[in-house]
Amino acid sequence: MLTQPTLLLNKAKCLANIERMATKAKKTNVLFRPHFKTHQSAEVGSWFREYEVECITVSSVKMAVYFAENGWKDITIAFPANIREWSTINDLASTINLNIVVESIDTIQSLERNLTNPVGTYIKTDTGYGRTGINAEDYESIQALLKELKTCKNLIFIGFLCHAGHTYNTNSKEEIINIMDSSRQQLLALKTFMANDFPLIQISYGDTPSCSLSDNFEGFDEIRPGNFAFYDAMQAHIGSCNLNDIAVAMACPVVAKHPERGEIVIHGGAVHFSKDQIINDGTPQYGTAHPLNDRNWDTSKQLGYISKLSQEHGIIKMPQEHFSNINIGDMLAILPVHSCLTANLIKKYATTEGEYINMLI
Amino acid sequence: MLTQPTLLLNKAKCLANIERMATKAKKTNVLFRPHFKTHQSAEVGSWFREYEVECITVSSVKMAVYFAENGWKDITIAFPANIREWSTINDLASTINLNIVVESIDTIQSLERNLTNPVGTYIKTDTGYGRTGINAEDYESIQALLKELKTCKNLIFIGFLCHAGHTYNTNSKEEIINIMDSSRQQLLALKTFMANDFPLIQISYGDTPSCSLSDNFEGFDEIRPGNFAFYDAMQAHIGSCNLNDIAVAMACPVVAKHPERGEIVIHGGAVHFSKDQIINDGTPQYGTAHPLNDRNWDTSKQLGYISKLSQEHGIIKMPQEHFSNINIGDMLAILPVHSCLTANLIKKYATTEGEYINMLI
Repeated sequence: MLTQPTLLLNKAKCLANIERMATKAKKTNVLFRPHFKTHQSAEVGSWFREYEVECITVSSVKMAVYFAENGWKDITIAFPANIREWSTINDLASTINLNIVVESIDTIQSLERNLTNPVGTYIKTDTGYGRTGINAEDYESIQALLKELKTCKNLIFIGFLCHAGHTYNTNSKEEIINIMDSSRQQLLALKTFMANDFPLIQISYGDTPSCSLSDNFEGFDEIRPGNFAFYDAMQAHIGSCNLNDIAVAMACPVVAKHPERGEIVIHGGAVHFSKDQIINDGTPQYGTAHPLNDRNWDTSKQLGYISKLSQEHGIIKMPQEHFSNINIGDMLAILPVHSCLTANLIKKYATTEGEYINMLI
Repeated sequence: MLTQPTLLLNKAKCLANIERMATKAKKTNVLFRPHFKTHQSAEVGSWFREYEVECITVSSVKMAVYFAENGWKDITIAFPANIREWSTINDLASTINLNIVVESIDTIQSLERNLTNPVGTYIKTDTGYGRTGINAEDYESIQALLKELKTCKNLIFIGFLCHAGHTYNTNSKEEIINIMDSSRQQLLALKTFMANDFPLIQISYGDTPSCSLSDNFEGFDEIRPGNFAFYDAMQAHIGSCNLNDIAVAMACPVVAKHPERGEIVIHGGAVHFSKDQIINDGTPQYGTAHPLNDRNWDTSKQLGYISKLSQEHGIIKMPQEHFSNINIGDMLAILPVHSCLTANLIKKYATTEGEYINMLI
């Protein structure tokens, strides 16, 4: 019996999500290099091997070390390279095929001074998200980086890497597809412009919403979605998946009921969910509540939503029709708003089949 | 040399914070029962023993087990008791003096049916926060709980417990003190009302803002602040502490610079800080950036603030005067908005003296 907040993982749903994306990538003949920051687990990672995945993405050197120790031989760290970690990067590059991402001359020069092993190197390009990377239309700055990379012995230029994270701020499938198309156009134009000097430029593209909604990966050499393996309430809200595709749910015990406010208190707080929210009809929601039967949750029925989170408490707003059926001591299934952050907090999965799976600590 | 995001802990500042609160409690002759959910560390917990602390507060059964295993013999779990964990509660109650918190007849009846060892029992009362607990002015409901508790063999009624968390939504010291005064009045009136039947009622009060700003703990039998041991940018924003009292900071490496936006990218994201924010002049901030010299940070100078967080990235808005002095590879000190959630994510402290301290995993 589950007694505490527990992160449930439905392996069948997860496998179906992986298979769907792997099949799409294969059809378009692009390399499928899934991002493992979502599950951060050697065992969940091993499930991808069934779908011929051999190349992966991570978001930190620490994660790269963990997956390299667990047998992965081709890893891209899709995060601006941290020059302070050059020594670990160098060690990794001596044993696996390691790719890094750069976006400044300072980083290139510093790494080139220190590294003794070759690392594949992407230039991070920004196609409109505005978080990191060089504006994909700023050819001058990109040429300056390329010029610097040309002088390097150990930083081996591969191509342009982009994360179109602005797909998360959209309201329709059309907008998401438009962002992918616009990113593709920018990156292909850039590639064409540089083709004389660099004929073998690769384009690496990633984000779950557009890779989920589009079937057209033409122009990309690889895709790097990550969240799709689990999905979450945010992705369902955006339209990247159905509620039923979500492969994880937090089982949380009901500890108090407040009928006068239509509120249920669960043990399930910011230390279980982190604090990402979706805005539904102007109201912030930190997760949706569904019935739980043993370790299986029922997405066909929504009982309420988390309206507030403190460290250990979750407050669920619940309409009267469901409220009266819920008892203290019941377990509810909460679909997390952001499954990556939830998994990162819990550090352990309980599969619906009754197994426990560890992850990177 | 620090290479990755690292949670720094200044022991001297932490000890000063503990001493200040312990001294105030002693002066007013109330029991100091600090909340250990902030640090979740056996070693940091042991520092409290120097100030004669023997009774502590935690927010989950798991945390109670951890601290009991580390020698603490008097623990209150200040969270509505989770009846599914009765067996662990019962085991704990056989070895230490354990107190729990209830707010419903269902919980009382369920635990009384199952427990074979006595547990001290508080009724959670709500003095205006509106999260959990029975409205402190709803004497009828409270009397119903007391009536139920009177029939119990193993749930031993101690008194009323209250967390005035609405002190976090204030704009002045005066408002915070008013909330404490109002809570005190409500709890004392309740105590007086019940005094005939229950002459020994204890009042347990907790929250860092009011316990930090007030010297008057009269009427309370014990105080349970927790965050004060570390404080954070939120507490400084509320006015509970000075920036210089904050005992923890995240050291984060600079990985990219975007002069056109006045933005610095650090390795330091939602997996390091969680996502609590303060609103400063209408702008959400997820932490403030300060110079870091080895392991010592300088709060006299603010370089910027975190304006956005994704899983591993932090985006720091930085004015031009500071921007040009920061180089890729520099380490910045970030004062977290919520030190409890930050510590819970990092699971390890690096003291300014160069030691490493573990915590509950």
